[in-house]
Amino acid sequence: MKESDSELKQGQIRFVLIHPTHPGNVGGVARAMKTMGVRQLTLVAPQVKLPNEEAIRRAAGAEDILYTADVHEDLDGAIKDCHLIIGTTARKRSIRWPQMTPEQAAEKLWDESRHGPVALLFGQERSGLANPEVERCHYLVRIPTNPDYSSLNLASAAQIMAYEVFLKRHSSLGTLQDVPRYADQESMHRFYRHLEEVLLDLDFPIARPPVILMRKLIRLFNRARLSEEELQILRGILSAVQQHVAKKS
Amino acid sequence: MKESDSELKQGQIRFVLIHPTHPGNVGGVARAMKTMGVRQLTLVAPQVKLPNEEAIRRAAGAEDILYTADVHEDLDGAIKDCHLIIGTTARKRSIRWPQMTPEQAAEKLWDESRHGPVALLFGQERSGLANPEVERCHYLVRIPTNPDYSSLNLASAAQIMAYEVFLKRHSSLGTLQDVPRYADQESMHRFYRHLEEVLLDLDFPIARPPVILMRKLIRLFNRARLSEEELQILRGILSAVQQHVAKKS
Repeated sequence: MKESDSELKQGQIRFVLIHPTHPGNVGGVARAMKTMGVRQLTLVAPQVKLPNEEAIRRAAGAEDILYTADVHEDLDGAIKDCHLIIGTTARKRSIRWPQMTPEQAAEKLWDESRHGPVALLFGQERSGLANPEVERCHYLVRIPTNPDYSSLNLASAAQIMAYEVFLKRHSSLGTLQDVPRYADQESMHRFYRHLEEVLLDLDFPIARPPVILMRKLIRLFNRARLSEEELQILRGILSAVQQHVAKKS
Repeated sequence: MKESDSELKQGQIRFVLIHPTHPGNVGGVARAMKTMGVRQLTLVAPQVKLPNEEAIRRAAGAEDILYTADVHEDLDGAIKDCHLIIGTTARKRSIRWPQMTPEQAAEKLWDESRHGPVALLFGQERSGLANPEVERCHYLVRIPTNPDYSSLNLASAAQIMAYEVFLKRHSSLGTLQDVPRYADQESMHRFYRHLEEVLLDLDFPIARPPVILMRKLIRLFNRARLSEEELQILRGILSAVQQHVAKKS
């Protein structure tokens, strides 16, 4: 059964904790991950310094996950090589974002992890994912909870998601779907910068509420999940527009 | 949504912790239960005396579950009114006992709870269910774990089971999701014609395999499912490009 574990390692599913504040939670997440064979833990600007005694105690034999955890100063650094980003959320978001069930998210993570790293984001304990963090996501997964009390502990949320990934990994052997090669986050960022540049060249009124317009476009293209080929086509169009605008002036 | 909560109360699904030793775990179980609308906690000969500060801290707002918990000296007292008893186990038992997946167990618990109280047993943290406890069970549920590390925390096991119960309870109800106002097909066709026009204005090489390129773009935007607002933004951009290209010539 060793093989199942190492396959999950290749699977490159990364659990990303953003600004975790309680060492016990970080340890609990490590334990939750390891019980389900998920091994890549990444911390973004943690308020917890590792190694930490409380974290190790709560990890209860899953310290190796803590020792091999990556630490990044910001979220973009933590996910720049990922081509699929899913954010966990307990609340219903007013902004419209494609929402999945834990089961659907686990399937997507598992299927697409074969092409490279994929990330599942967990927001800060008290506040969850902030809007700029949500904007990095292709999808949100909402873990269903009691509407009267939705205060899911961080390690519990990780446990449920890791469990669903484990189920998918074991149910989907041999029935893996073909997925396209999606563009990674860094290429998408370059595309968004390019798009913004072109809109400015066009004197397109993004300046009125500029952030809002770009956010809407980013949301659209994140939702569409561009393949590498599609991204090239769109960038080609942007370059063609720029050439024309340049020729004019 | 109050109703869902009270229905689960009527459901009378009882989580029974046998000899729990860590107050933090008892608090964590209470929290896990409440997030999923399971309310009946029973402790059998606990080594934790309630109320306990650490338990309350970890319950994080689910203290009511702790305050209303039943405490029994022995297991038989705790389950005597139950007509269905399911035991949780992480290991494969050598004794042959009917084993279920968490999903199957949740379904059975939920279905049969309508006829009266049903119990889900959790063994002591370190050792799990002892054989005399297993013998009280109609079924065992094995939460699947990494064969190399199956050390599921008590609160985590409770979280997974409560989550599965929650899913079962809600699977029959239709989930009402907020859907945006999507653009209709006619608007999309107009958009595609507009896009094609602009690409021709730009001398963009759609002409080589023109149909193929347009098809790829159509596939992309169909997949994204544009809202009316997004469609307007994109058409605005196309018009801006056309104006610039027209000015030039």
